[in-house]
Amino acid sequence: MPQRFCMIKKFLAAVFCLIATYSFIPQKENKPNVIIIFMDDMGYGDPASYGGGPYKTPNLDRMAAQGIRFTHFYAAQAVCSASRAGLLTGCYPNRIGIHGALWPTAPMALNNDEETIAELLKSRGYKTGMVGKWHLGSKPPFLPLQNGFDEYLGLPYSNDMWPVHYDGKPYTDTTNSRSKYPPLPLIEGNNTIRIIKTLEDQSELTSMYTERACKFIRENKKGPFFLYLAHSMPHVPIAVSKPFRNKSGAGLFGDLMQELDASVGAVMRTLEEQGLTKNTLIVFTSDNGPWLNYGNHAGNTGGLREGKGSSWEGGQRVPCIMRWPGEIPAGVVSSEIASTIDLLPTVATICGAKLPAKKIDGVNILSLLRNEKDARPRDHFVYYYGVNNLEGIRKGKYKLVFPHKGRTYKNNLPGYDGFPGAQPNVDVPLALYDLSIDPGETLDVKERFPEVVKELEALADTYRNTLGDELRKMPGTERREPGKVVMK
Amino acid sequence: MPQRFCMIKKFLAAVFCLIATYSFIPQKENKPNVIIIFMDDMGYGDPASYGGGPYKTPNLDRMAAQGIRFTHFYAAQAVCSASRAGLLTGCYPNRIGIHGALWPTAPMALNNDEETIAELLKSRGYKTGMVGKWHLGSKPPFLPLQNGFDEYLGLPYSNDMWPVHYDGKPYTDTTNSRSKYPPLPLIEGNNTIRIIKTLEDQSELTSMYTERACKFIRENKKGPFFLYLAHSMPHVPIAVSKPFRNKSGAGLFGDLMQELDASVGAVMRTLEEQGLTKNTLIVFTSDNGPWLNYGNHAGNTGGLREGKGSSWEGGQRVPCIMRWPGEIPAGVVSSEIASTIDLLPTVATICGAKLPAKKIDGVNILSLLRNEKDARPRDHFVYYYGVNNLEGIRKGKYKLVFPHKGRTYKNNLPGYDGFPGAQPNVDVPLALYDLSIDPGETLDVKERFPEVVKELEALADTYRNTLGDELRKMPGTERREPGKVVMK
Repeated sequence: MPQRFCMIKKFLAAVFCLIATYSFIPQKENKPNVIIIFMDDMGYGDPASYGGGPYKTPNLDRMAAQGIRFTHFYAAQAVCSASRAGLLTGCYPNRIGIHGALWPTAPMALNNDEETIAELLKSRGYKTGMVGKWHLGSKPPFLPLQNGFDEYLGLPYSNDMWPVHYDGKPYTDTTNSRSKYPPLPLIEGNNTIRIIKTLEDQSELTSMYTERACKFIRENKKGPFFLYLAHSMPHVPIAVSKPFRNKSGAGLFGDLMQELDASVGAVMRTLEEQGLTKNTLIVFTSDNGPWLNYGNHAGNTGGLREGKGSSWEGGQRVPCIMRWPGEIPAGVVSSEIASTIDLLPTVATICGAKLPAKKIDGVNILSLLRNEKDARPRDHFVYYYGVNNLEGIRKGKYKLVFPHKGRTYKNNLPGYDGFPGAQPNVDVPLALYDLSIDPGETLDVKERFPEVVKELEALADTYRNTLGDELRKMPGTERREPGKVVMK
Repeated sequence: MPQRFCMIKKFLAAVFCLIATYSFIPQKENKPNVIIIFMDDMGYGDPASYGGGPYKTPNLDRMAAQGIRFTHFYAAQAVCSASRAGLLTGCYPNRIGIHGALWPTAPMALNNDEETIAELLKSRGYKTGMVGKWHLGSKPPFLPLQNGFDEYLGLPYSNDMWPVHYDGKPYTDTTNSRSKYPPLPLIEGNNTIRIIKTLEDQSELTSMYTERACKFIRENKKGPFFLYLAHSMPHVPIAVSKPFRNKSGAGLFGDLMQELDASVGAVMRTLEEQGLTKNTLIVFTSDNGPWLNYGNHAGNTGGLREGKGSSWEGGQRVPCIMRWPGEIPAGVVSSEIASTIDLLPTVATICGAKLPAKKIDGVNILSLLRNEKDARPRDHFVYYYGVNNLEGIRKGKYKLVFPHKGRTYKNNLPGYDGFPGAQPNVDVPLALYDLSIDPGETLDVKERFPEVVKELEALADTYRNTLGDELRKMPGTERREPGKVVMK
């Protein structure tokens, strides 16, 4: 009898396994949860796995060891609003008329006609939540709830767009343009629920966002869900919550890196607690390179040239780590070209969602995530900056930089303790770089490879004809209009 | 009865486990196998996990995911012989009188009085094998067999020290100093067994070394063993064996990176086949940065400044990955300062060997390998170059560069397809860099932090007083003599 009982138990266990497998696969195959964690101004060299330190980022290190880490991953554009527009729509931001960092009273916003990742997944039955910095329109018709998100808590734009001086004190000098900023609102849904007034208020943002993100995961554990956690930090003014102060031994920026790393750890721990680790794709990346003229309050590029606000590699190449156990092999490193604009088509494919009706620029990089042999979904990338300047193009290992005015941090003492240094524009000449032997963009090899220059010029022309290029006074034929903000 | 039998089986299994554990721990604790894989001129940015590509290095990526990867790891000195002397003795190479890259008829060698890692481990009962490039004395009294190794197969010095032109053809122009090099010998034990005459001969070196290394592991699987696999590649002239040609899609250097990565993979696979994975510490690193004036035949620094032959970060910071399952946690990244000179005391501790009788400079970094909280075994590092020039010192995030003549690759078109470009010396002024925000050493901040300059100058003086500094005409009190080679 005991033996028979044993057999019955085994049979039941097998049946249970089959049921579990059956109920698991379809969800896993078609509707995994998706989390995008987006940093603000975190440089290519900032996480320890990209060379940063002496602070520690053990959660990001673990995420990389369990997933894939990209070393040639590009933000859509090297500045805040443009970069975010690209991430959420899968488009080069100039295609949809977004450029720069929208100021609080900017007359433009992300057009509601553009389909975001949140909208695609919502129509596929996903719960969609956003926490953190939006920066694609600061008034209700253009806030996250009108762009596919079921819920939202965060700042509508950058945390330095407030009437507060670098030293943390409110402006008394009303001639300063920064003193004209409206009070910085914390928004829940479409409504302002608080004003961020002090650096102490700023110091609570990271933990507040993290708690809200973890709450969203717990509340939607039955899935599927899409969470977009866009931290306001480490954008200046940087501030750290009490438990992390003076803990890194590497100053305020180091403390902040450890708090942001812990935020990633909290998200991973919550997934683990809810049994969601295997069925969730997490993406970690940044909107652009470090704002170098803030010196010790900014991150680093790991040696790449220049930083935020420039189309040099230091401005546009960002850290990117993805984890999806079972689907992404552990410990893979990809040195293939990829970009934040590729997230939308990749996530849409993974989740079985339709692509937007309008043309996009991103490509599906699932083959890279799966580490498929010889996968190369993207062979080139274009670097637009400003309103619509085509400043550079990369194909394979070569990057051709077109003559333009470019921001530089060189030869200027950087800022310190919250006060910025200079970031003048300089004239950048035509130059060709071989990024495989010269990632620092120091040696122009255009004289040696005129045929490469020619090939890249021809490829750039296809963008000039369609997306335009202000540097050559070409309007393009495919640019779409941004949303028009009517200020009351 | 069956139940009782079951209990006996369980009891026996438990006893077996205890015995296995007992017999395993002492060996594991005290005498793990040790393998050091040393690359020649591989740059900080070359493995994919350090940003390299578009070739692939999946074996190194896996090794990193299973172990620890260092991002602030320094070669003892940024040139071949000096670097190797430091690695094997745990000393700054100037302490033991070794500098530069010893030419075939150099009158100096590693002094036989210095104790190498091989000698320490041999006296602890290890079988010791070396495969590859030696470069610490090219004649028998100074070859590996006289420095603690039981067996040796390899080249006694650099693979470009041969009477062959850059195009691979023997020199006809006898006025060229390179035409005076003696034939390049392949050595087994103390004897020349073959002459390396052609690029085709060079193309077999990597696979020959790899096969010999794997054979040594198999033959010594009962352990304990120490294997020092010092590849001749990717030092110029680079050459790749047939199975790897045109495979990377990234040129000859990319093909070579894939062959060298495969060599690491072959070593790891052999360990796995012999059941030695858990009980073996593997260290992977490089002797100095890339020889940048060889252009597409050299590696890259990932954006760090300058390369081989300079004390800028690009010359001296190198990739370093270590794996030792069970002892080193998986997927750890360390941004702490460490160096090849720390390997000797660390390995000695792990293996229960005595430290050398004479003073060394390395420190035990086992606490980093174990990822112990707040571990910081090394807080500073000195950059010597030339015969005995103290060119820089780093403490924490700050690096002070002293005025000196330094090699530069900037503003010169690099070489191509095996032919070198220029690498002139330029005057380098006093400068202070904050490597945590400026790893590319672009912004001198000495004016802002005079107290840091003062502190680092004082620390440098302790080295000037003991190891000397030719730049300030200080002989030092602690330097030892190299071995004196008597040429017949």
